[in-house]
Amino acid sequence: MPPTTGNPERRAAICDAVFELLGEVGYDRMTMDAVAARARASKATIYRGWPSKPELVMEAVEHRYGGAMEPPDTGSLRGDLYAQLSAVCTAACGADGAVFTGLLTAATHNGELAEVLYRCTYETKHSMYESMLKRAAERGEVPEGTSAELLHEVLHAMVTSRRMWQNGPLDEAFVARLIDCVLIPILQRG
Amino acid sequence: MPPTTGNPERRAAICDAVFELLGEVGYDRMTMDAVAARARASKATIYRGWPSKPELVMEAVEHRYGGAMEPPDTGSLRGDLYAQLSAVCTAACGADGAVFTGLLTAATHNGELAEVLYRCTYETKHSMYESMLKRAAERGEVPEGTSAELLHEVLHAMVTSRRMWQNGPLDEAFVARLIDCVLIPILQRG
Repeated sequence: MPPTTGNPERRAAICDAVFELLGEVGYDRMTMDAVAARARASKATIYRGWPSKPELVMEAVEHRYGGAMEPPDTGSLRGDLYAQLSAVCTAACGADGAVFTGLLTAATHNGELAEVLYRCTYETKHSMYESMLKRAAERGEVPEGTSAELLHEVLHAMVTSRRMWQNGPLDEAFVARLIDCVLIPILQRG
Repeated sequence: MPPTTGNPERRAAICDAVFELLGEVGYDRMTMDAVAARARASKATIYRGWPSKPELVMEAVEHRYGGAMEPPDTGSLRGDLYAQLSAVCTAACGADGAVFTGLLTAATHNGELAEVLYRCTYETKHSMYESMLKRAAERGEVPEGTSAELLHEVLHAMVTSRRMWQNGPLDEAFVARLIDCVLIPILQRG
């Protein structure tokens, strides 16, 4: 892990510069020097903080996406799923979605980067789905103790697959069909 | 499309050479000349048949995976799904699975290659799932007219996602859980 000392605002600016450049030129063509220039930091600051490009990119991903998320609380399971999945699809369609697709490509040659991407896009989000289902169980919408494993795995696979193959839009119709025809039947199965 | 004239066995040998080399050195480092050498063909033959590497790779994918498949016919929906999904997982774990992961990376920069990959791994397999569900409806296992769209989309997304993230084995437990906890509940929903 890179050192976590230093001015947090400075580190945030550097992470933002990394995402901007990943969006503009992609992982392979992004250089440490370009990050320094974009963040108005000295090259020495960059190289002191992060010895290599993968480490710099990994911190930027952690910084922007590594945190846990508060689950939406709309009062119903369907409402919660709709709010959450809409947010996921909006993010996947935006500039960061394209950055992640590019990073996935780089990750096929870099196991450590693949682990960071998986942790930030999947593992750190898991407790949010567990809270959502716990509340749904309290309301009697799903059986007590329903695990979030399958819900999360299927939801993530369906969104990343559509993003990757671009075989259809990540729109409201996709969200509604995924919830009503896939996720809720899985959660409420006998 | 490349010309389809010429000796079919010769073309098959060239396609096999392409897959071997993709497995050994990957898309980026595979050269047309190496394909010629591996297939014991003259460079002139290769360049006359396929003007560029993407076209050569696309024909190799079409040749090996572009055909329709006969669905398994075990007498039950669960048995058919088990047989089919086991075959898909075995292929995804093998040498060709690694080749496809590499090609997906190349396809992020090449829309035509992405289309061929999607057609060969998805579209040409769709009628097989339709036949499987038609027979299941005749046996009363699913409602008449159950569409194969969702079944196929979820199955494909779950296998490719696990293959890509390597977040678990594509083993018997995965197959059984996907069938019993995801696919059958989706097919038999209200």
